[in-house]
Amino acid sequence: MTAPHLDPQALADAVAQAMRSRDRTSQGLGIQILSVKPGYALVAMPVRADMVNSHRTCHGGFIFTLADCAFAYACNSYNQNTVASSCNIDFLAPALEGELLEAEAVERSLAGRTGVYDITVRTRSGKTVSLFRGKSYRIKGEVIAGLQEGAAENGHCRPDPQSIALTVTMAGSSPS
Amino acid sequence: MTAPHLDPQALADAVAQAMRSRDRTSQGLGIQILSVKPGYALVAMPVRADMVNSHRTCHGGFIFTLADCAFAYACNSYNQNTVASSCNIDFLAPALEGELLEAEAVERSLAGRTGVYDITVRTRSGKTVSLFRGKSYRIKGEVIAGLQEGAAENGHCRPDPQSIALTVTMAGSSPS
Amino acid sequence: MTAPHLDPQALADAVAQAMRSRDRTSQGLGIQILSVKPGYALVAMPVRADMVNSHRTCHGGFIFTLADCAFAYACNSYNQNTVASSCNIDFLAPALEGELLEAEAVERSLAGRTGVYDITVRTRSGKTVSLFRGKSYRIKGEVIAGLQEGAAENGHCRPDPQSIALTVTMAGSSPS
Amino acid sequence: MTAPHLDPQALADAVAQAMRSRDRTSQGLGIQILSVKPGYALVAMPVRADMVNSHRTCHGGFIFTLADCAFAYACNSYNQNTVASSCNIDFLAPALEGELLEAEAVERSLAGRTGVYDITVRTRSGKTVSLFRGKSYRIKGEVIAGLQEGAAENGHCRPDPQSIALTVTMAGSSPS
Repeated sequence: MTAPHLDPQALADAVAQAMRSRDRTSQGLGIQILSVKPGYALVAMPVRADMVNSHRTCHGGFIFTLADCAFAYACNSYNQNTVASSCNIDFLAPALEGELLEAEAVERSLAGRTGVYDITVRTRSGKTVSLFRGKSYRIKGEVIAGLQEGAAENGHCRPDPQSIALTVTMAGSSPS
Repeated sequence: MTAPHLDPQALADAVAQAMRSRDRTSQGLGIQILSVKPGYALVAMPVRADMVNSHRTCHGGFIFTLADCAFAYACNSYNQNTVASSCNIDFLAPALEGELLEAEAVERSLAGRTGVYDITVRTRSGKTVSLFRGKSYRIKGEVIAGLQEGAAENGHCRPDPQSIALTVTMAGSSPS
Repeated sequence: MTAPHLDPQALADAVAQAMRSRDRTSQGLGIQILSVKPGYALVAMPVRADMVNSHRTCHGGFIFTLADCAFAYACNSYNQNTVASSCNIDFLAPALEGELLEAEAVERSLAGRTGVYDITVRTRSGKTVSLFRGKSYRIKGEVIAGLQEGAAENGHCRPDPQSIALTVTMAGSSPS
Repeated sequence: MTAPHLDPQALADAVAQAMRSRDRTSQGLGIQILSVKPGYALVAMPVRADMVNSHRTCHGGFIFTLADCAFAYACNSYNQNTVASSCNIDFLAPALEGELLEAEAVERSLAGRTGVYDITVRTRSGKTVSLFRGKSYRIKGEVIAGLQEGAAENGHCRPDPQSIALTVTMAGSSPS
């Protein structure tokens, strides 16, 4: 049996769907996937009451997590298991309770096993809340095992957790 | 009425207690404050089932949030409202479900309004999971208004959200 | 006597010229200013024999210095003394002896005293060599003292070195 | 013919000597190697007149280059060719003409092909000028080919420039 050959956009869509279904964290935070393309993702998250401090501004941890999520969808869009090795985030302006945040991830570089992605977090009104730069590292395995080679039946592409030399921090880095 | 004069350690303890009581996020994540000193904090968080992906490794967003929390307690320990301006995080090894993570924040530099803090995230067994470097920026106001000047009665030290030029992302940066 | 009022582009040009004339380092490295605009700079540097290692690839220090130079011209283009507070650089591909490197600095954010600039270092053929993100901090004084206020005669806008809380590391941060 | 087996300290010393002899840049800047150990280096550089701007404070590019040099000696101390993949630098205080700067590199993590090193740049009087964090990436080959395997005669360990996936930016990363 041969898996259907997918064009890059269809592959990115299939991967995003698979990642989303496995990722309770982004579900729990109300993160929505607005758009994915090869090397690109746009996701959104409302700033809820349980995400803010007493000033009603969003905790940095949630802003990071939103940006990290966009990063994961973008860097895994080729169906190659890819994790974050390091991230840099600048906080520019507060996000207030009730605002809808969008995080847009754009690929700046991809060579060998490593990539660089720029993620911008904005409010719907266009205010830039945060700039995030993530370095990705490709590990063994595929997000959807066997999708490209038609070898899904034995699951041998499932990454071995022991082989993940660097780290696994992303939702999308690991097939269930 | 004059507020009691506090020595630096007592001030750090009082600030941590005040921050903790206002911060539903760290409460919700089960983050515990193990130790605070001037410019220093040690906090802990268990990796719960709702923090992991299908490989049972902790999401990067939660590791960041834990480190960010230690950073906030350390840089606000002088009772001067202080926020994160930028953070850099390296992910070195996965944290597994059930492990207890500790984040230790140490002050590397503090001059004028800006500081640099190094936060190391380790498992109880000593495995280094992540290295985080945060840059802090002091804004107006105090965590516990009036504690040092004996001027708490009118709350005029409460920071004006409009005056927060850079951002407010930390739990501890804002008195309620 | 009143100094002529300059439009933003003319001001950026005048500042770049003043910075260039004072900066022996960029002169010594053969760095050329190709274009400046408000918040923007494009500079170039040939990779000389004395900048490479035994593989004939350019040392990271020179790539950093080139990017840092573009950063300085961009963030000082408003004639407000501005210095680097922190920089992040990713090295993506080697630059070889004889190649001409261009560094393009683009403003991503500017609010209050702080800014974020993205600098991309490319070869003439379009290969991306390095990505650099710099955080700027505005200090006292102007690059060309008195240019905008017509108050140059007493030089009171000359920044006091003691007042530079953060640091002065840029060529353009300091009027002579 | 078999090369002598070297203990880690003797290996670090031999590597540093080999790197130094090939590196005209550090020679040109007057950088001195004060101490090397496995995963560690201490280097020094005087702030010369040609390194400062009109305020007599050292350019950031030279501070970066000094820290980068300490980083290179530390991460290559095991005689495995290793390059910088990314660096983060914070500028904390100015360095003045005539001051002697020391950069101390300490290994924070080394796993698989990647490492994290913290480099602190101080004046002799103990003022911290800059904090630098570098991520290293091990590539093919050895600094001193064949030293450990007794296979130096054919030089087959000389790294192929084409195989350097990430980048080569360090002096010490490449045997001549």
